[in-house]
Amino acid sequence: MVTCYIGIGSNLGDRENNIKKALTLLHGCLNTEVEKASAFYETQPQGCPGNAGRFLNAAAKIKTAFSPRELLRQLQSIEKQLGRIRPGKRNSSRSIDLDILFYNNQKISLPSLKIPHPRLRQRAFVLKPLKEIAPETIRSLAKETKIISTLSGMRGFIAKEKAQNMTIGFVPTMGFLHEGHLSLIRQAKKDCDTCVVSIFVNPIQFGPQEDYKKYPRDLEQDSILAKSAGASCVFYPNAKDMYPPDYLTYVNVEKITDYLCGASRPGHFKGVATVVTKLFNIIQPHIAYFGQKDYQQALVIRKMVEDLNMPITIKTMPIVRECDGLAMSSRNAYLTTQERADAVVLYQSLQKAREMVRQGQHDARIIKTAIKTAILKKKTAKIEYISVADARTLEDREVFRQKTLIALAVWIGRTRLIDNIIIEV
Amino acid sequence: MVTCYIGIGSNLGDRENNIKKALTLLHGCLNTEVEKASAFYETQPQGCPGNAGRFLNAAAKIKTAFSPRELLRQLQSIEKQLGRIRPGKRNSSRSIDLDILFYNNQKISLPSLKIPHPRLRQRAFVLKPLKEIAPETIRSLAKETKIISTLSGMRGFIAKEKAQNMTIGFVPTMGFLHEGHLSLIRQAKKDCDTCVVSIFVNPIQFGPQEDYKKYPRDLEQDSILAKSAGASCVFYPNAKDMYPPDYLTYVNVEKITDYLCGASRPGHFKGVATVVTKLFNIIQPHIAYFGQKDYQQALVIRKMVEDLNMPITIKTMPIVRECDGLAMSSRNAYLTTQERADAVVLYQSLQKAREMVRQGQHDARIIKTAIKTAILKKKTAKIEYISVADARTLEDREVFRQKTLIALAVWIGRTRLIDNIIIEV
Repeated sequence: MVTCYIGIGSNLGDRENNIKKALTLLHGCLNTEVEKASAFYETQPQGCPGNAGRFLNAAAKIKTAFSPRELLRQLQSIEKQLGRIRPGKRNSSRSIDLDILFYNNQKISLPSLKIPHPRLRQRAFVLKPLKEIAPETIRSLAKETKIISTLSGMRGFIAKEKAQNMTIGFVPTMGFLHEGHLSLIRQAKKDCDTCVVSIFVNPIQFGPQEDYKKYPRDLEQDSILAKSAGASCVFYPNAKDMYPPDYLTYVNVEKITDYLCGASRPGHFKGVATVVTKLFNIIQPHIAYFGQKDYQQALVIRKMVEDLNMPITIKTMPIVRECDGLAMSSRNAYLTTQERADAVVLYQSLQKAREMVRQGQHDARIIKTAIKTAILKKKTAKIEYISVADARTLEDREVFRQKTLIALAVWIGRTRLIDNIIIEV
Repeated sequence: MVTCYIGIGSNLGDRENNIKKALTLLHGCLNTEVEKASAFYETQPQGCPGNAGRFLNAAAKIKTAFSPRELLRQLQSIEKQLGRIRPGKRNSSRSIDLDILFYNNQKISLPSLKIPHPRLRQRAFVLKPLKEIAPETIRSLAKETKIISTLSGMRGFIAKEKAQNMTIGFVPTMGFLHEGHLSLIRQAKKDCDTCVVSIFVNPIQFGPQEDYKKYPRDLEQDSILAKSAGASCVFYPNAKDMYPPDYLTYVNVEKITDYLCGASRPGHFKGVATVVTKLFNIIQPHIAYFGQKDYQQALVIRKMVEDLNMPITIKTMPIVRECDGLAMSSRNAYLTTQERADAVVLYQSLQKAREMVRQGQHDARIIKTAIKTAILKKKTAKIEYISVADARTLEDREVFRQKTLIALAVWIGRTRLIDNIIIEV
């Protein structure tokens, strides 16, 4: 009998029951017993049609006397019993999905069977339940990633890369990586020889009443995801090294930080500009990558780089959305099931606004009212701001013309979410 | 008959009369006539004993039929007639000093005669009168210096230097270079392969009532002096390129900018930190040099570099003083003869304070009173601040201990001068 780990998912029918049945059938097999199963985690479908249901995911530790091929056949037979239609379309909905993640410590690479599972390291929805039942396995996967946690270590790494004329791409993050971050990392890896990802929850960009302490963190999972997306290393400094007790220096971009999130989060962008300056000086990248979701942040960083003559190119990458349209955000992890369902209203109201403008409605007041009405239909929603603004200066616009930004900040329950679109008239 | 330029100086006896006599004797010579003479400029003696008198300097354009050697002998004969004792000590006082600066366009290099004058390019007191009578000569000397006035030009120069693994030393200045600046340039040239000197009168570090517009400027002279001290090039950006109309970003070092000059010049150090950050990003030096005279500025820059993790070493170099002790400053050019005489009281009062501390007086209040009393004996003097402070934090100290800074800002007439000493107890 050898130890194996199995990944389990379902987004069709009675998902919980499907997973339970699969585990029961597996445990009932001759030659196989389920030793431990993780809790069931609800996750968004990935890369699937917009109407796909959410997944329940789990992982199980089993003992088996089957060979890897026999075990695969066994899993496929269980999938069939539980109504899985094969061959289905890629990423289509399925009543049950069973994957061999690990088979003992074997490495198998056949056309029909690759073990360990080749996409394991890219899938947070597998890593999370697996961590629950096999924390050491996750730890050893995470150890494959070079993590640098001292400033001098990071400087040393960069010096070596630069001595070899490597171009450096840099993705600054606060961790709890999602597909939005990973799209930046993949782009950096495409553009540059070396891709550095920083993970640092920056205390000075949080207000005293904000979620600095509870901001979600998972370094092991982030390390695995970052490397699988192309990161050469993860820079993970600690707050005491970044801000020693006698710290005194701040970078501030004026005016464009007075609007939108800047208005409700005083000091936020000063914190962002300062930490990004520090990270730029430590990592000295050729190109740095930011997400369009934080539109104002990307604008502030671009302005700062231009004004301070920083020798860095800034690339802003498109918003990555869940299948239903919700912009990916680490803070989405805070949402309850009901809130998650309501949260899609940010995206939907922006789409509706785009359609109204397309049909000739250029009055910002009317567009804002339409967005407000749509959002307030959700009981969990509270609007912080709806802004129609010049996409460059962020000054309010009364009429849509040229490049106009619509930006939202909406509280869904106790979670603050933002989203935006640019409309060209 | 060929055209020659002669440098003339005197710091002994009736200086004006000595120079006038020398010109008359020269004009009276067979074979020689004086075509044009500059005004007489009063300048500080250089590298001479502290009790040396101030010089009057002039330059003359002559026509002569003498050979260079004959002309030299003629000048030495006039010096002798006017009471010059040869051989005198190096830099000793002299009733008259006559040097051949140029002889036609000839280059002569003999042990006893070098033409053009080999130290011409290092001597502001020669360049200034020469410029008056031979502006094109000065212009062509200035053209020997590589002056880069665009940001992209500067970036290109640095890229080439770095591609050849050159180390870059950087001396940021506001121009009107004096020996203080030149000592920084010489040190940079000693430490690094390439030395870049920037000349930029930074508008954002001047208050609205301050001397931005009248701040002294002389790019040609600065170019000649900078190159002769070791500068590889002069970066001379214009204010519109440094601060375009939509400029928004500032770097601020808190707390240590609240004291001393920061208290009386609000926004000054924000302007300094911002421009230095910009220049650092454009020039990307390995080492940057600052003068101890602007103690607080050097401290602010060091703190900024440390806090923002800029990959740059900061070197602070000692104050360079005139023979009588006055700290060199471009603003000394504003002083009238009487004010210049009074200005030495800053240095003298600091020396007196040092002596009092050495003799055991550690009470800051008593030391400050002694300084105040000394300064106010000068009718042209008005005290802005006298500060006894912790040399690291700049917080006020009541008692001298460890490293203590005494810093002064004093108005002499309409000119604001600063000076300081560090006293270790």
